[in-house]
Amino acid sequence: MNRIPFAEVQAALVGVLRKLGFADDRVEICARLFCETTRDGVYTHGINRFARFVATIRNGRVNPLAEPEVKARFGALERWDGHQGPGNLAALAAMGRAIALGREHGVGCVALGNTNHWMRGGTYGWQAADAGMIGICWTNTMPNLPPWGGAERVIGNNPLIMAVPRASGPVVLDMAMSQFSYGAMESYRKRGEMLPVDGGFDAEGNLTRDPGAIEKSWRPLPMGYWKGSGLAVLLDMVAAMMTLGQATYQISSVAVLETAISQMFLALNPGAFGPAPEVEKIADAVVASLHNCAPAKPGEKVRYPGEQTLHIREENMRLGLPVEPEVWAAILAM
Amino acid sequence: MNRIPFAEVQAALVGVLRKLGFADDRVEICARLFCETTRDGVYTHGINRFARFVATIRNGRVNPLAEPEVKARFGALERWDGHQGPGNLAALAAMGRAIALGREHGVGCVALGNTNHWMRGGTYGWQAADAGMIGICWTNTMPNLPPWGGAERVIGNNPLIMAVPRASGPVVLDMAMSQFSYGAMESYRKRGEMLPVDGGFDAEGNLTRDPGAIEKSWRPLPMGYWKGSGLAVLLDMVAAMMTLGQATYQISSVAVLETAISQMFLALNPGAFGPAPEVEKIADAVVASLHNCAPAKPGEKVRYPGEQTLHIREENMRLGLPVEPEVWAAILAM
Repeated sequence: MNRIPFAEVQAALVGVLRKLGFADDRVEICARLFCETTRDGVYTHGINRFARFVATIRNGRVNPLAEPEVKARFGALERWDGHQGPGNLAALAAMGRAIALGREHGVGCVALGNTNHWMRGGTYGWQAADAGMIGICWTNTMPNLPPWGGAERVIGNNPLIMAVPRASGPVVLDMAMSQFSYGAMESYRKRGEMLPVDGGFDAEGNLTRDPGAIEKSWRPLPMGYWKGSGLAVLLDMVAAMMTLGQATYQISSVAVLETAISQMFLALNPGAFGPAPEVEKIADAVVASLHNCAPAKPGEKVRYPGEQTLHIREENMRLGLPVEPEVWAAILAM
Repeated sequence: MNRIPFAEVQAALVGVLRKLGFADDRVEICARLFCETTRDGVYTHGINRFARFVATIRNGRVNPLAEPEVKARFGALERWDGHQGPGNLAALAAMGRAIALGREHGVGCVALGNTNHWMRGGTYGWQAADAGMIGICWTNTMPNLPPWGGAERVIGNNPLIMAVPRASGPVVLDMAMSQFSYGAMESYRKRGEMLPVDGGFDAEGNLTRDPGAIEKSWRPLPMGYWKGSGLAVLLDMVAAMMTLGQATYQISSVAVLETAISQMFLALNPGAFGPAPEVEKIADAVVASLHNCAPAKPGEKVRYPGEQTLHIREENMRLGLPVEPEVWAAILAM
């Protein structure tokens, strides 16, 4: 594993994106978002995903010059068209606008259709929390998960993000509707390990912890079985209805062909009714109640969502971003 | 099992509520909400729960005369105080106001603090959908669930509701953050059955499907393990912050003493940008994609959340509400 300074990685990504036709005013931001994702420890969706992002530009699914555009306004609600541009830049703009609407109206909502994969969903939760707002956002995806009771992948794993601002570090939940991602199952299989809990069905239709069996059956579990399945359906419906955009069943099920997806961004202003520092103390007290909980295993402790992020961030900024040698070599060769 | 006409059950509940001091203009609505919950097949939270509701009036936790009151307004966002009145009436008023705000601003939000158990959360999802709006609401609860990694019950099962309007029947998801409720586990145990999937830990800390073992350990599982645990934490934080009300850790863990809880109601207007019938067709097409999915077991079919409700409703209106004889006798004796 290489450790490379943030600025050096970002400069390398900027160089690649420029060659691909990105405009000057956006290239730094797009590269930064990839680096920040790796910096925060979400390695699957940061630099390790850059090559796949580049592939979607080369195959025309992502138009590097397309900018998101507001199509309709109605009070605290706006509908945007992503014009199939870079999904991370569009999502950043959409949450930015939801935050502005939330400041003005107490709650703001942007429905962003015809966009592309936003990479790490938590980015936009952190964005809201860093602005002192509660952020809620979700995306639909290509069909990659069987619904509860179904044998075919017709629903998406539709990540849902909820973020709460706190002076001592935001609380950010970033969760897909599948219990385990294919990437996670692959990692377990390569390490020769079983999943810690049931993750899907084997070829005979039995619940299993065997990651290889689930990869073969293509039947991973929705988180919470029928519950995550139902939530995935509702998130997809609402996103498609509010954007007038595509629902999961209309999206290509080939990863590098996935495009024209639908996303929702909500921002709530916790400072609307009380001084923000006082309101944030309410979240602090909930965190304390978790930390005071007796652990299930001696010596461990209960954590809040996102608790490790600031620690990982500090370490990766101090030591350099961790980058696999082959990933780094590929980027330098692009 | 008795089958008693809706109107007869409602009249009986009205009689009890009058004796408990309910005002004339609200008694019919409160009774109706209990009957509608049983009518729709959510038996745990309808007439079967009425005695427990009455107990909370008698012990002073629910003030039958208290009405919810708006405390602060900020554009599309309002903060309400439930004054510890009947939780179902306060929630109905709060979602009603969120719907009005949503019509005016595209999105509306009411944060309702200091309220009581709303009984069936799906009621307020149906309310939004019947008004042509997308409804999203959640409540916190008393501590009744261990967080992931914890041995003590310090988080709530915090039900989350999402509802989408459709001419042919709303899609309504109504799910608690526990994989199984204590009521469900009790039912399985009494029938001598194992849970269909892991539902909690036994006394040795092993995952189990044995409902009795989980009832003894008081360690049911959050749905999706760490995922539902994290979502429960965020729902609680946001509700407490936006209401300036109580978080789960501050609420009594004795069921009939639970009071002063915090709830969020959001309404999104799907007709803001396009003709509502066209927008609802987007949801119809998602439903069709589920119905067209090959089932995991031959002869079964994939259902959308709330799909059975209209069928059950029709049957219970035709045959009469199903009421256990002892439950009915107890109501008549109140």
